[in-house]
Amino acid sequence: MKLYMSPRAPNPRRVQIFIAEKGITGIEEIAVNLNALEHKSPTFRAKSPLARIPVLELDDGRNLGETRAICTYLEGIAPSPNLMGADATERAFIEMADRRIEFYILGPIANWIRHTHPGLAPLETPQFPAFGASQFEKFQENLHWLDTVLSSQDYVTGTRFTIADITAFCGIEFARLMKFRPAEAGFLNIQAWRDRVAARPSAQL
Amino acid sequence: MKLYMSPRAPNPRRVQIFIAEKGITGIEEIAVNLNALEHKSPTFRAKSPLARIPVLELDDGRNLGETRAICTYLEGIAPSPNLMGADATERAFIEMADRRIEFYILGPIANWIRHTHPGLAPLETPQFPAFGASQFEKFQENLHWLDTVLSSQDYVTGTRFTIADITAFCGIEFARLMKFRPAEAGFLNIQAWRDRVAARPSAQL
Repeated sequence: MKLYMSPRAPNPRRVQIFIAEKGITGIEEIAVNLNALEHKSPTFRAKSPLARIPVLELDDGRNLGETRAICTYLEGIAPSPNLMGADATERAFIEMADRRIEFYILGPIANWIRHTHPGLAPLETPQFPAFGASQFEKFQENLHWLDTVLSSQDYVTGTRFTIADITAFCGIEFARLMKFRPAEAGFLNIQAWRDRVAARPSAQL
Repeated sequence: MKLYMSPRAPNPRRVQIFIAEKGITGIEEIAVNLNALEHKSPTFRAKSPLARIPVLELDDGRNLGETRAICTYLEGIAPSPNLMGADATERAFIEMADRRIEFYILGPIANWIRHTHPGLAPLETPQFPAFGASQFEKFQENLHWLDTVLSSQDYVTGTRFTIADITAFCGIEFARLMKFRPAEAGFLNIQAWRDRVAARPSAQL
């Protein structure tokens, strides 16, 4: 299999950590040059019609896009350790947590960075800086929720590490581009959780 | 079980159509008054900490939020007809399609409406009309992709109706609030598909 990715982008990193947690080996990583707009080329659009990374090319030649869908596939071929839920009910509750992180933490972070950081101007056209700044405010609001969640449990969904921790970690780490650190903003439970996750072998990329 | 919803909101409608397609009966619907900001009350936040609808309250008292996670749970308790994939590989490809619809069709529609429609001002504070207008442009771009997909197959993921059709249908129908009709914008394959889906008993809400 081949993973089309970009070295500093948060969504490919979610898949890379998922792969490392599973102990899956042998997936070739192919870097797509976003700044050169390689993802918008006809060649890459044949794999990913909406020009998004990551994409997992399967051994049968099919291309699977969308971070969380790639993880669903990998969970199927490598069920252990379980990261997405052992039955439909647990899958549903972990999906709820993962979506809350994706929509209300990672999403606002991404919008904040993409609409305000000069380095992202080639990828986000046009940028709306006032909108980006308001997304930072929403991100801060939602961090209060996440900090409360992590005040009484070690991981986003409870007592064990799941895909929701991967999504949250890649979001919080992406915010370092804006010099954001949870502890400096007063979110001590998030900082402690972040440091626990950062110590895992899968995070050493 | 109880479904906390709002009569005109697209995300609760996704769950309502999913329930109707499954033939599940006996779920009590409880309307949450968004214009009165009832979703932001402490009582409702106890069920949905980020103040989002829909929420499915299970018989054991647990509250499950996030549209697609609710569908994952319902697919588990009512497997037939299958709407989300029969095995992990099919689940992954349907999830890819569903996410593309959610992020690149429904998402831009929602941002367009929430940031430009005066009726949504109480829910989207502050509104950024220029950002909203740019989301309409992205929605139009992405409709070209969806129209091409639907030029060679009857449903979003291929030959059968799935959750991705529900997500797309609720998005396109939400855009009627802005007087958007696919055929009038030149998207004839989307219009034909929309009319097929609209004729299903599950869409008659």
